[in-house]
Amino acid sequence: MKLASLNNGRDGELVIVSRDLTRAVHATDIAATLQQATEDWDTLSPKLEARYAELNEGKAEGAFDLEQNTLHSPLPRTYHWADGSAYLNHVQLVRQARNAEMPETFWTDPLMYQGGGDKFLAPTEDIEAISEEHGIDFEGEIAVITDDVPMAVTPEQAADHIKLVMLVNDVSLRGLIPGELAKGFGFFQAKPASAFSPIAVTPDELGDAWQDGKVHLPLTVHLNGEKFGEPEAGPDMIFNFPQLVAHAARTRYLGAGAVVGSGTVSNPDPDGGPGKPVAEGGVGYSCLAEVRMVEKILHGDSKTPFMHFGDRVRIEMFDREGKSIFGAIDQQVVKYQPE
Amino acid sequence: MKLASLNNGRDGELVIVSRDLTRAVHATDIAATLQQATEDWDTLSPKLEARYAELNEGKAEGAFDLEQNTLHSPLPRTYHWADGSAYLNHVQLVRQARNAEMPETFWTDPLMYQGGGDKFLAPTEDIEAISEEHGIDFEGEIAVITDDVPMAVTPEQAADHIKLVMLVNDVSLRGLIPGELAKGFGFFQAKPASAFSPIAVTPDELGDAWQDGKVHLPLTVHLNGEKFGEPEAGPDMIFNFPQLVAHAARTRYLGAGAVVGSGTVSNPDPDGGPGKPVAEGGVGYSCLAEVRMVEKILHGDSKTPFMHFGDRVRIEMFDREGKSIFGAIDQQVVKYQPE
Repeated sequence: MKLASLNNGRDGELVIVSRDLTRAVHATDIAATLQQATEDWDTLSPKLEARYAELNEGKAEGAFDLEQNTLHSPLPRTYHWADGSAYLNHVQLVRQARNAEMPETFWTDPLMYQGGGDKFLAPTEDIEAISEEHGIDFEGEIAVITDDVPMAVTPEQAADHIKLVMLVNDVSLRGLIPGELAKGFGFFQAKPASAFSPIAVTPDELGDAWQDGKVHLPLTVHLNGEKFGEPEAGPDMIFNFPQLVAHAARTRYLGAGAVVGSGTVSNPDPDGGPGKPVAEGGVGYSCLAEVRMVEKILHGDSKTPFMHFGDRVRIEMFDREGKSIFGAIDQQVVKYQPE
Repeated sequence: MKLASLNNGRDGELVIVSRDLTRAVHATDIAATLQQATEDWDTLSPKLEARYAELNEGKAEGAFDLEQNTLHSPLPRTYHWADGSAYLNHVQLVRQARNAEMPETFWTDPLMYQGGGDKFLAPTEDIEAISEEHGIDFEGEIAVITDDVPMAVTPEQAADHIKLVMLVNDVSLRGLIPGELAKGFGFFQAKPASAFSPIAVTPDELGDAWQDGKVHLPLTVHLNGEKFGEPEAGPDMIFNFPQLVAHAARTRYLGAGAVVGSGTVSNPDPDGGPGKPVAEGGVGYSCLAEVRMVEKILHGDSKTPFMHFGDRVRIEMFDREGKSIFGAIDQQVVKYQPE
């Protein structure tokens, strides 16, 4: 099943989207918002699934042509947004950029930070930034939405609480990160509002690509219309989603609608190297910080700049037949103008 | 005006509470939840204020005797919970316990972490913990609730967005903090669900005690029925609430209902020393980590343990006439039992 939220009101209006993303039908009579659907998933999802089947068969009453730019992020806001960093190739590269070693424990104990969930950006909404000097970067990731998760669940138990999968652009201000991390309390100003793919899908929609709690497909990232990366999201994800959800719930209950992210998708080279740009025959990257670090390693200097005002990033995932699964995150960076 | 949420449903049911905390009246016809009230504050608060006046005059229709244990935290969940650490005496002490120096920049750049807002505890709800070895501690704090805050507001502008004030118990698992902070991403498992005072009040309710964006009153903390601390919340708060809100909003918009906390209330001695226990004539503390550090400084060893299962903490604030302003947070620690 594929779900989305029309960009109307603080929580959007729930719609069901056809498998091929061309058609949609209202679902507010079943659940007004996606948040509400997650709060009563076992009761409501069969009703949503039934209408989804009708929609795909062309039999859903009131169905309409979907324009993706009418959609907000599936959850326009959420009570819990926790982002892991499960691709350790990314962690190694960004730490190398800060001259910080990666501790051995990172292979067994997931990194995760708590983000702000109050005002996500819509998938095609501008990224407002105060200054290019903040080092504006994108991070292409995958995230899951849970229902209510009991405290101290095992990864096996956590797997059953993963209800939906989507993509994320975890916007990062690289220039603010070293100062914030040095303070010891983690990211805050360096991680402004994220945007999510217009459509969230149940894991079964991914077919064989959903295995071991991971999405085994490449994530496609374009920067200003040119392919920037197509890293595989499956093999190098060191902690799978059930493990990340269990990590988040170790000392607390998670409320329905909790969003848990994978961290920036990143592949090392087959020979263990840090990965190559697309132009050099590699799979590329899903953030600028990595290519900058690789340039430094290979050529002594980072030549790719962070995002300028006017730059555009597009993040999408295609199935093995080349069809878009989640729709596209497609955002331009603009200079913040005070109201 | 004083507002609260009956512990019914995920977001509670909005009630107005009389100044003396003895009576209440429903307000769901004005706004179903406190969250909704913050989303349309300028329109709804005059209606709530009018009924509050009636309630205090004994003229509100449908008023009833208030039992504080029927209340949840004013916002049972929120989309944004950001906790500052504005009492640097606390920061100095807890860092000393970890043998970490406090950088000079901490005097000009606020510490703040992003917390999970999805499942706050009710003010009298048990604190479930997995193990006493996690170093279970309370932190008595003050917090404010905002309406929608534009990005990059100045502290002067942020002041107008502070709509309500309340108390917090920012439950902390001290044993998990060093490991988490060493990973660099800040607190996560070490900061499980917080609880808030049963009643939130508009700043004008504090009268002269609300000055310069701070609450100039002592915070009273009891541990197992004995007074543990009565630190003054005003003088040693290095960053006031408008500054903390502006810090949180520097690179993002804050959604209505955002909660911003002060950090643990803490006073140094008048001579600049770290503060003394109540039993030694000091104002005491609003967390255990501080007394443990002071014991170590004074006697070479921490003798006060962290909380055991069965221990109870009570956090309250009284006006200059001895009347409780916010009602009491009163929580017992219990061992978590899997469902």
